[in-house]
Amino acid sequence: MDRIGFERGPVTLTAYDWVPDLAKGQVRDLRLRWALEEAGFAYDVDLVPQGTQGQPENLARQPFGQVPALTVGGDTIFESGACVWTIAQASDALLPADPAERARCLTFVFAALNTVEPPLSMMAVLRFFEMQPKRFEVSDPAAVAIVRPGARMLAVQRLAQLGDEMGGRDHLVADRFTVADLAMVSVLRIAEWLGILGEAPDLERYVALHTKRPAFARALAGQLAPFAENAPRYERAAR
Amino acid sequence: MDRIGFERGPVTLTAYDWVPDLAKGQVRDLRLRWALEEAGFAYDVDLVPQGTQGQPENLARQPFGQVPALTVGGDTIFESGACVWTIAQASDALLPADPAERARCLTFVFAALNTVEPPLSMMAVLRFFEMQPKRFEVSDPAAVAIVRPGARMLAVQRLAQLGDEMGGRDHLVADRFTVADLAMVSVLRIAEWLGILGEAPDLERYVALHTKRPAFARALAGQLAPFAENAPRYERAAR
Repeated sequence: MDRIGFERGPVTLTAYDWVPDLAKGQVRDLRLRWALEEAGFAYDVDLVPQGTQGQPENLARQPFGQVPALTVGGDTIFESGACVWTIAQASDALLPADPAERARCLTFVFAALNTVEPPLSMMAVLRFFEMQPKRFEVSDPAAVAIVRPGARMLAVQRLAQLGDEMGGRDHLVADRFTVADLAMVSVLRIAEWLGILGEAPDLERYVALHTKRPAFARALAGQLAPFAENAPRYERAAR
Repeated sequence: MDRIGFERGPVTLTAYDWVPDLAKGQVRDLRLRWALEEAGFAYDVDLVPQGTQGQPENLARQPFGQVPALTVGGDTIFESGACVWTIAQASDALLPADPAERARCLTFVFAALNTVEPPLSMMAVLRFFEMQPKRFEVSDPAAVAIVRPGARMLAVQRLAQLGDEMGGRDHLVADRFTVADLAMVSVLRIAEWLGILGEAPDLERYVALHTKRPAFARALAGQLAPFAENAPRYERAAR
């Protein structure tokens, strides 16, 4: 999946045709769309009908029954981290040439996904427990409120550490926008969704700065368009 | 950090000089040690005294106040995922030559760290909440037991999906041991620690198979040796 692969295409990613309001703008294909838009690579989107993600057709490309998967030529990979790193390696728009700077970018892609995202995911899961206690076998939803302060403390600690590391700068690596910022901003949008990004004002500014990028706006519009188109069908069914 | 970098050295990783029993054999530097042992690269270990991980000296190389960090020549990176991937790229012992197989390996490194590990981490965090409720502001530790079944369900679902994907095979990619197995087995050892790996017998066998590797045994012994050496000092202090 070198640059030639992406330039010759076809490049296809998977995304849902519809998701509930809570997930709109948060589904992980957004990260790939943003990277592809920044790199200027053309791509198609293969929509997975909501409710079929656990069927064999989707499991063959994404064994955890999720989106996204990314196909370039005949090869398919998945995991938003692996996909954005692969796209970045094919584009000067997302990675500097200097090997030490590239290594720092890889570090911060993993930091976003394996250090900053897990405590945010825990808070998101707790929210799902409160919304659907029966589905998650939570016999008393009030228990969620009792464990939330601890989860919030761990998440806010990570935001504070990242804020200290950035020291008000606009970029994580090499004083320019890279895949490190793309991954970190994508993850910090979960903190925004959880209502805790304001605990780290420098990071709030950092997210606002980079989500103003035209490539981000195109990516977000691309994810949301089929949701709007398919809403009548799914939202009628949900009533 | 190409092969030459690792072969010329010096290669140094950071690790703790001591941790409580619960963390012994689970600290993330184990992943780097295992990768370096498989690759046959010589390395030094710079021990971070327990309790000083949040001090400026350690934050300069690991901004989240953790271990490990990896220094090769003059360049330092962190995040166990970034480090093992960087080591793997420098060694045939951990990555096949075929580009499509390498891309699958990258996919499963991210799957280990961003899809399988987060629900396991949530269960680990819940355990810490029960052990130290005051520290985590959990006013009633009984609340943890109420949310645990939901967290367990999500973790076991991931194990089942991974088990289905593996279908009893010994390796994730290319019918040989790769960095994908190294990362996945490392993460599955958290499930073992949590007592839920038995829910997926194929994965239990997979972990047992690869943790029998001599390189793993050397890595684990390397992590544990300073803990034993420094135990009298720290464990006396804890009494």
